[in-house]
Amino acid sequence: MPSARSSAASHPPGAPVYLDHAATTPISPAAIEAMTAVFASVGNASSLHSSGRAARRRVEESRESIADDLGARPSEVIFTSGGTESDNLAVKGIFAARRDSDPIRRRIIASSVEHHAVLDAVEWLVEHEGAEVTWLPVDSTGRVHPDTLRSELAAHGHETALITIMWANNEVGTVMPIVELAAVARAYDIPIHSDAIQAVPHLKVDFAASGLSAMSIAAHKFGGPQGVGALLLGRTVPCVPLLHGGGHERDIRSGTHDTASVVAMAAALKETVGELESRRSELVRLREKMIDGIRTLDPEVVVNGASGDGRLPGIAHFTFPGCEGDSLLMLLDAAGIECSTGSACTAGVASASHVLIAMGADPSTARGSLRFSMGPQSTDADVDALLAALPQVIERARAAGLASVGARGGQR
Amino acid sequence: MPSARSSAASHPPGAPVYLDHAATTPISPAAIEAMTAVFASVGNASSLHSSGRAARRRVEESRESIADDLGARPSEVIFTSGGTESDNLAVKGIFAARRDSDPIRRRIIASSVEHHAVLDAVEWLVEHEGAEVTWLPVDSTGRVHPDTLRSELAAHGHETALITIMWANNEVGTVMPIVELAAVARAYDIPIHSDAIQAVPHLKVDFAASGLSAMSIAAHKFGGPQGVGALLLGRTVPCVPLLHGGGHERDIRSGTHDTASVVAMAAALKETVGELESRRSELVRLREKMIDGIRTLDPEVVVNGASGDGRLPGIAHFTFPGCEGDSLLMLLDAAGIECSTGSACTAGVASASHVLIAMGADPSTARGSLRFSMGPQSTDADVDALLAALPQVIERARAAGLASVGARGGQR
Repeated sequence: MPSARSSAASHPPGAPVYLDHAATTPISPAAIEAMTAVFASVGNASSLHSSGRAARRRVEESRESIADDLGARPSEVIFTSGGTESDNLAVKGIFAARRDSDPIRRRIIASSVEHHAVLDAVEWLVEHEGAEVTWLPVDSTGRVHPDTLRSELAAHGHETALITIMWANNEVGTVMPIVELAAVARAYDIPIHSDAIQAVPHLKVDFAASGLSAMSIAAHKFGGPQGVGALLLGRTVPCVPLLHGGGHERDIRSGTHDTASVVAMAAALKETVGELESRRSELVRLREKMIDGIRTLDPEVVVNGASGDGRLPGIAHFTFPGCEGDSLLMLLDAAGIECSTGSACTAGVASASHVLIAMGADPSTARGSLRFSMGPQSTDADVDALLAALPQVIERARAAGLASVGARGGQR
Repeated sequence: MPSARSSAASHPPGAPVYLDHAATTPISPAAIEAMTAVFASVGNASSLHSSGRAARRRVEESRESIADDLGARPSEVIFTSGGTESDNLAVKGIFAARRDSDPIRRRIIASSVEHHAVLDAVEWLVEHEGAEVTWLPVDSTGRVHPDTLRSELAAHGHETALITIMWANNEVGTVMPIVELAAVARAYDIPIHSDAIQAVPHLKVDFAASGLSAMSIAAHKFGGPQGVGALLLGRTVPCVPLLHGGGHERDIRSGTHDTASVVAMAAALKETVGELESRRSELVRLREKMIDGIRTLDPEVVVNGASGDGRLPGIAHFTFPGCEGDSLLMLLDAAGIECSTGSACTAGVASASHVLIAMGADPSTARGSLRFSMGPQSTDADVDALLAALPQVIERARAAGLASVGARGGQR
């Protein structure tokens, strides 16, 4: 099998080796089954008749199931259209509510490695709503240290509207010390939101125990459908809605419930949380096999992010000096191996990742980076196929990279 | 069949008679098939590898198909999570863009019969963003007359940011003279948005020919899945995003594409548009049969809205004097017949509909109203079942209504 995939020249027949689970995951059979059951009926969960009440019951049972799996109360689960909406709702909604009640509170404290759904929302508030921002630095593995947050709050706590720090990074997979960070935020009585979109598929996440005020999740990262997610929001955390209308979802998010997707999200989460431990040990094994294998075949490679439990089990992130990430990606794709250079949401953008820059990487080197992310379907054969294809891919990409450096030099 | 449903005492066995298509429609087999095909693969439409590009191709083919079916250019189709998001994006986004470029333009001109997704978004802008609003009056059938808009623009055109008037009303089904209204707006060079969510399932809608600047649609109203919709937005209409992130969708709407839902929406729309004429004549026949039948069995009934082509083919809306709408709804539900008192989005709210009030109805009488809305699955048997159940339901509701009037009188 791996040998059939070892040619970088053309796409082999059959399904590709999918090493991009952090971008999106295959929808699980349990989720499809849950959706299909809903499709057999009709009903708007806001309608008062029997079909409407049956749809509402499905939505509420899903809410209870999701709350139970994430250590939250059902009333803390606000259904949304996905991670981007959850992040935008948390950042803009909590900012607006806090500033409205105290105009001095216009500062947002965010990690410098946030996903663009947080980062761009914050920048929009800075440009259009008079917000000020502190981008918290991270160490070379991508971690925000609790002391960094503590110093910032000592200086600016009185003018801070909210803190937003992701639970685990979507590019390099580094896990933040979220419980410690939340404790610092609580000491200053400032709401803290966390984008937990990459954490939920792989880590035990307990909203109540975390001490967070708000937390974003997205179903398609853990085997649920695309287009659905949730914001977990503490009962006492004020939040101005982004979408106004019928007042569904605690008056914080309006719009007809997507019953089928909500039910499927609950089913996928239940399965994910139930298999967390067994999946984790297998993914860690595959990840370490991949890291060891790539280090062996290319001694120059840089492994980015934290090691061991400081990193999500399924993500490995590498910089291949002298290569362009996009070239590597395309050559691997031609060999039937799918991965990404960083976040899918900024794919095609030819600048170095803000995450790697924040971690102290050299911008020119950082461009030669790839993220491989695995999920429950990943196997030894996938890793073997990658290791078989990579030498030729690196050689070609390095040759192209050197040629392009030469060409650029010539243009000066 | 109808006789089996004629008892108002208990829910009969079998599927209910579903007369609430304006709230949500059964998902069509074509839409399920389209979704299922997507579920067999994996891919984030923003990823650069083969699976990602395949997902992107599906999204773009769906965009072309939807544009083709609605007389728009593909680049004018912005995918969203549904009607509420589309309405909020249009109203808030166009308002913000217009005010940013000319601070005098703070007025929103809206019909007084808009759906809550528009109405509440406008009211939020008034309360929080310094907007001013003109609620355009409607006639007794629920229509905004072009002359009403013209006079308002003559007085306030220079300070107007946008106009928003729905294509067809979701409660009474009245169709607006949208082409004439758009022509008036164009004469004053003011962007006009229309919530076409109820129109698209039943009327020939041509975005380019309509002269509109923006138009909202929602898939679950025409046999597509819940949780997906679109805003059609002219290329030259400025609009500030609501959801920031990866910059998907022309930088106006971010978030991972919900590929399966987008593809299913396109399939459902294709089917709907293809069968528009044949469905329309059948629905008009059923609607008129229902209206005639109900008028015969209750001479006191008031048929609300316009007649003939001035009304959506599938919607009939009645006021039963002396009854409470919620009582009627619950008694009909017990008899296996599902309908609504107005919009599902405000179900359970015990005040008279703003739509009926705007049409000049007496608030106390207006509360005794029901909407019956039909779709392609509706049959003569459904109408027969309604007509069989209604006499006993009206009698009971009227008795309860009179009792409650008596009780209220006694409390004074």
